[in-house]
Amino acid sequence: MSTYGTLFRVTTYGESHCASVGAIIDGCPPGLELRDTDIQTQLSRRRPGQSNLTTPRNEKDLVHIQSGVEHGVTLGTPIGLLVKNEDHRPHDYSETDFYPRPSHADYTYLQKYGIKASSGGGRSSARETIGRVAAGAIAERYLKQAFGIEIVAFVSSVGKIQIPQTTTADDDSDDAPDPVSPEFLKLISTVTREDVDKHTTRCPHLETAERMVQRIIRAKDAQDSIGGTVTCVIRNVPGGLGEPTFDKFEAKLGHAMLSIPATKAFEIGSGFRGTEVPGSKHNDPFVVREDGTLGTKTNWSGGVQGGITNSEDIYFRIAFKSPATISQPQSTAQYDGEPGTLAARGRHDPCVVPRAVPIVEAMAAIVVMDQLLIQNARKTAASLLPPITTLPPTMVLPPATQ
Amino acid sequence: MSTYGTLFRVTTYGESHCASVGAIIDGCPPGLELRDTDIQTQLSRRRPGQSNLTTPRNEKDLVHIQSGVEHGVTLGTPIGLLVKNEDHRPHDYSETDFYPRPSHADYTYLQKYGIKASSGGGRSSARETIGRVAAGAIAERYLKQAFGIEIVAFVSSVGKIQIPQTTTADDDSDDAPDPVSPEFLKLISTVTREDVDKHTTRCPHLETAERMVQRIIRAKDAQDSIGGTVTCVIRNVPGGLGEPTFDKFEAKLGHAMLSIPATKAFEIGSGFRGTEVPGSKHNDPFVVREDGTLGTKTNWSGGVQGGITNSEDIYFRIAFKSPATISQPQSTAQYDGEPGTLAARGRHDPCVVPRAVPIVEAMAAIVVMDQLLIQNARKTAASLLPPITTLPPTMVLPPATQ
Amino acid sequence: MSTYGTLFRVTTYGESHCASVGAIIDGCPPGLELRDTDIQTQLSRRRPGQSNLTTPRNEKDLVHIQSGVEHGVTLGTPIGLLVKNEDHRPHDYSETDFYPRPSHADYTYLQKYGIKASSGGGRSSARETIGRVAAGAIAERYLKQAFGIEIVAFVSSVGKIQIPQTTTADDDSDDAPDPVSPEFLKLISTVTREDVDKHTTRCPHLETAERMVQRIIRAKDAQDSIGGTVTCVIRNVPGGLGEPTFDKFEAKLGHAMLSIPATKAFEIGSGFRGTEVPGSKHNDPFVVREDGTLGTKTNWSGGVQGGITNSEDIYFRIAFKSPATISQPQSTAQYDGEPGTLAARGRHDPCVVPRAVPIVEAMAAIVVMDQLLIQNARKTAASLLPPITTLPPTMVLPPATQ
Amino acid sequence: MSTYGTLFRVTTYGESHCASVGAIIDGCPPGLELRDTDIQTQLSRRRPGQSNLTTPRNEKDLVHIQSGVEHGVTLGTPIGLLVKNEDHRPHDYSETDFYPRPSHADYTYLQKYGIKASSGGGRSSARETIGRVAAGAIAERYLKQAFGIEIVAFVSSVGKIQIPQTTTADDDSDDAPDPVSPEFLKLISTVTREDVDKHTTRCPHLETAERMVQRIIRAKDAQDSIGGTVTCVIRNVPGGLGEPTFDKFEAKLGHAMLSIPATKAFEIGSGFRGTEVPGSKHNDPFVVREDGTLGTKTNWSGGVQGGITNSEDIYFRIAFKSPATISQPQSTAQYDGEPGTLAARGRHDPCVVPRAVPIVEAMAAIVVMDQLLIQNARKTAASLLPPITTLPPTMVLPPATQ
Repeated sequence: MSTYGTLFRVTTYGESHCASVGAIIDGCPPGLELRDTDIQTQLSRRRPGQSNLTTPRNEKDLVHIQSGVEHGVTLGTPIGLLVKNEDHRPHDYSETDFYPRPSHADYTYLQKYGIKASSGGGRSSARETIGRVAAGAIAERYLKQAFGIEIVAFVSSVGKIQIPQTTTADDDSDDAPDPVSPEFLKLISTVTREDVDKHTTRCPHLETAERMVQRIIRAKDAQDSIGGTVTCVIRNVPGGLGEPTFDKFEAKLGHAMLSIPATKAFEIGSGFRGTEVPGSKHNDPFVVREDGTLGTKTNWSGGVQGGITNSEDIYFRIAFKSPATISQPQSTAQYDGEPGTLAARGRHDPCVVPRAVPIVEAMAAIVVMDQLLIQNARKTAASLLPPITTLPPTMVLPPATQ
Repeated sequence: MSTYGTLFRVTTYGESHCASVGAIIDGCPPGLELRDTDIQTQLSRRRPGQSNLTTPRNEKDLVHIQSGVEHGVTLGTPIGLLVKNEDHRPHDYSETDFYPRPSHADYTYLQKYGIKASSGGGRSSARETIGRVAAGAIAERYLKQAFGIEIVAFVSSVGKIQIPQTTTADDDSDDAPDPVSPEFLKLISTVTREDVDKHTTRCPHLETAERMVQRIIRAKDAQDSIGGTVTCVIRNVPGGLGEPTFDKFEAKLGHAMLSIPATKAFEIGSGFRGTEVPGSKHNDPFVVREDGTLGTKTNWSGGVQGGITNSEDIYFRIAFKSPATISQPQSTAQYDGEPGTLAARGRHDPCVVPRAVPIVEAMAAIVVMDQLLIQNARKTAASLLPPITTLPPTMVLPPATQ
Repeated sequence: MSTYGTLFRVTTYGESHCASVGAIIDGCPPGLELRDTDIQTQLSRRRPGQSNLTTPRNEKDLVHIQSGVEHGVTLGTPIGLLVKNEDHRPHDYSETDFYPRPSHADYTYLQKYGIKASSGGGRSSARETIGRVAAGAIAERYLKQAFGIEIVAFVSSVGKIQIPQTTTADDDSDDAPDPVSPEFLKLISTVTREDVDKHTTRCPHLETAERMVQRIIRAKDAQDSIGGTVTCVIRNVPGGLGEPTFDKFEAKLGHAMLSIPATKAFEIGSGFRGTEVPGSKHNDPFVVREDGTLGTKTNWSGGVQGGITNSEDIYFRIAFKSPATISQPQSTAQYDGEPGTLAARGRHDPCVVPRAVPIVEAMAAIVVMDQLLIQNARKTAASLLPPITTLPPTMVLPPATQ
Repeated sequence: MSTYGTLFRVTTYGESHCASVGAIIDGCPPGLELRDTDIQTQLSRRRPGQSNLTTPRNEKDLVHIQSGVEHGVTLGTPIGLLVKNEDHRPHDYSETDFYPRPSHADYTYLQKYGIKASSGGGRSSARETIGRVAAGAIAERYLKQAFGIEIVAFVSSVGKIQIPQTTTADDDSDDAPDPVSPEFLKLISTVTREDVDKHTTRCPHLETAERMVQRIIRAKDAQDSIGGTVTCVIRNVPGGLGEPTFDKFEAKLGHAMLSIPATKAFEIGSGFRGTEVPGSKHNDPFVVREDGTLGTKTNWSGGVQGGITNSEDIYFRIAFKSPATISQPQSTAQYDGEPGTLAARGRHDPCVVPRAVPIVEAMAAIVVMDQLLIQNARKTAASLLPPITTLPPTMVLPPATQ
């Protein structure tokens, strides 16, 4: 449904062509400084019309806080957010209305509801993500201030053009090499949002970024589209987040990412490549950090072990399929089964991954925020109990590393 | 936490070395014939000791229904299930107890709880999956009887050995070829559980299966381990399952799969490869089926569009990392930071993917079951309203295809 | 938190003095005719300024549907609702701001959040109920159209003035008489919303209503306030709603009612009086109805047995305490502990129960709606299974009464 | 359904005549000392056969911890609990099986599920409460150790025999006197579980207790039954628990209490009587406590204001109807509509309120536990933010009273 989260809870509403889109964010900690502009930054990174690589529709997407904030400070009560839909343009789509658009949600919404919005994507439109990005901006703000958490996503591939990630693409041995190259790991550990925004593609590897531009222009010229992947890193997350069994951290994260429109795949840490590396090489050995706590020498786990964060960098990658909306004619069938040719009009993104970057960051922030609040609850509860002195030493942390 | 689902709700308990593991399944439809043996079949496919490729521990894992069933028929009330832990063997692990096992959950559980089970994996042990498999067997039984739904998972790769899935592995053009080969799509549409169980690897492509055996034996001989992928197909699922926004079908499915121990990645339909194919080729055009309803000519979407099932085959792939438990010595640190060498004893699976197959099927069944019940609710509710006659024709399905 | 419901889910936002209050209603069945005016009717019954018995603040409380509806028909997607706050009047309260108002939420909000809204009740204000009433109006509309369900609440007492409910108020025997008088039961089974609105007190027993007016005027003249009770009946609810154990129908209903501001008690059917009547008299014997199904001769159960509806009238009563806001001076302490005298200014309701009537109806509608959707899910699921023929005859309904 | 709670989550299973009843308690803080015997105490207070006032069935109800505890300390993982059903006695009920028992759940379960257990109450049996009592015992243990919270319930009335609660039962003025007498308030603030268990009725007012015994014996001799009320107090609960809007503390508490079998009403603080007292008298003025924090002079609010606890005693009362199972013949109808006479056999409680006492305490503990964990989450989160210095002084607590 349209609600995500247990203690930090985001509920959104809105279709492509209704009066407004918005969200209610419930469970934001009280005492956080927050103004419209703090949310607007990420919304503006998401909105269309930012470069010649994206759709020229110029939606302003200005957010207005309705509740939950006074004198620029959160009250702990639900934060209502509203963004007006200015650019309705329902006629832009009217000729094609007797065709379910291939690989869109037109037909499945009819299967589900027996009714669908009269034009555009309705609830399946990417405008739905405005509420997520706004909610994520609030979560991110808290995480930064309270824990110094940094969340940075970037475009790691467009079509077959990708930032070099592996030491050798293919080798002849039975075993794969390291799942991720040292250069890529270094990029993950240092990349900033400023680095990402230096290029319109939001790819911080400039040489690759230029090749991506060419690929996107080729798609645009062909009235076609092309997909890509977004990689995201979350730094400074404390250990202990995530729940055993069904609500493992990566399960919650995967859920959140795969709920973003047009996603088809998710991998964390070594991902699919991790299946090819033997355990002896894939395991992350423990080492002592400067502060006396344990860290891991490598981080193929991607910051999560047994479903619970271990305070190493959390990194993951999401696949966005090539956009379903293309301008070239497509042979397909109408709702009544009549075969024909569908020619979309209007202006469309040939490649959405640059605009997906803030959406990925938002969902990451929401997941971390909710898990942090839940772990806060347990940790505080446990700390109020009298200490247990009767347990075998291997059942508790040695004092040195606590 | 340890509960999954909204209307079909599974709650599990149990660690590796406690009295029993079990589950409560709440929301099973009343009137379903069900006996211990109906659940046991999948539990026996999951249990250790099935072949020389898996651990020789011989756990019987006999399930006993505690409640919710009378005269072999479900009552609609919660079904309690219990499997005794017979093979405790806590001493098998005792020497290593001062080391957090690399890439295990020992250390993260301590970070989370400040305490961990005295031996073995505790709650993070794969024994936790017994409850899931039992719950999934019940869901599957309902889905088969009420909808003819078929769920079949199989091992699609071990290390770098995989069933051929793509037409050409790599080509020089800027565009990728079809994301999945016709042969693999045919396998997906026809494979049965009997086909899968013909080989101890649970790989139905026999030539590949034999190569997998060699790869596993090589890992075993090297006191090492190797990962792999499981592919799963769900056939005959009605259209309309899944919810827009946060609870898209693939998001729920990905969540469920990434909650299985040792998983690192999930992809549905064309997955990561789908990002490399232009929209014109990746879109699934509509065609009329024999029964007058709309289907799609290709199925790169993997049976889900806009987060909602479209009644085509649902297929997806999950990555299982190489098992963290290996017998060869590992350089790592103790809990107190002291560096040293950890040598695991005991008998361990060099490769877990064959045993993961029934777990994947179980989680798939649980997800479909819960979504079906939710969609039942909406569909029935809508059907009780008077028909609307005032809407534009493009907002509702034409009578011919309903 | 600010979300209620499992499948019909209502999330609200808004404080007394923010930009707007509103709600998101998720899970409304598609295909329901719905316009702003359908919601406005109940909002207008809730709003202040309806008579000289309530506060003269004249808030217009006009609702605007933001999403989820097109061409006057629901799409199945979330319905966003917005009501602007027009009458901010923050200065009305400013002098008293250093006192936590006795029996208000000022102090407990500070204990909870460490921060509170600068003026008025903030989130604890009765303006919060606007979202509930709007959501309830939608639920009610569906229930009426699909099931003919009728929900009518009315004022049953103000202070000690109450509609006669029992045969004899007190008798000398050890046993109580019938918990509710035949006259009151008849009122419950026939009262309409039109009957209720005939009098400004919303008490349909006109003789009592007049006495209530005098009691309210006496409170008003004394710069004081007085409480009361609201009785509500829900007719034509199908049997089978509610869930065993924790989510019994009366538990969900009680939860919903006790979440309304100023409520202190809830009773269903015979309520507290039912504890005084022996089982032989309190039990509701079964009789055959004209349609062949079973009904009960009496209905002390209030339409719910074992936590599940039995298709008889559901009736219940809620206590609203005397409003905490009074104009007469009160001896109390400031936040810093300094004792003093608080004199509230502004205009306040001496008695809120007439305005509480639509709020009670709204929450009743929301509870029934959610439970109906959940039961729809189970019932449809069970109906798709092959019939069971092997059970003892006492485990299933005889064909005659199905 | 059969799960209660957000962070402290209780899921139960079991019918009257199945293999076992049990529960999974998820979210118990790690590091709590816990053994079977800590849970058994409350289970033994609940079990039948404790005195000649209750049923002579002698069920042992021994609980066995299955998981989540090692070396007598909780691990933070789910705690599985199991109690075998020893006294099946299905034949005890067989003759009556063609009659739905009046005011039992036989008929409503059939309406809901289309199938019911073959004998006894099935899931609606009071044996279901074993899981609650066990879970509550764990919650209570934590609350006692970490916060010094005390929960004491007692029988406050049987039929019309009640502990004197009000100063004057009825007076002639338009206003009611104080809702609760000083003597009763003193009892509430001091009563211990030992006081309660001194008398078989679990009524700590001995004079009243003796009269209750006579009333129960009269019901027993008449092959009849009689109801009663249980009053419960929770002391030392910190302020700030409960959530605005839908999850107010009293709403959660009422939900929990009304989910106990046979309950018909709930009131907190002044309850129904509070509606008759003018606001000027009903308001609880603030006073400074010895520790400098604010308390209230009176406590008609029952420890909750605006839905949030204020650290005063929380007291409430629950109505239990007269048990539906009686031995005297009843004129009623069979499932097929045939009228006849039902004569129950077997041994039944003429009055269940003494045994209800530990169930009420258990549900109270579960509610407080869950709300405490949730508030822990928020409070810890807020404490990690930098202090806000720009707010008006009336929006935050003065330093003196923090």
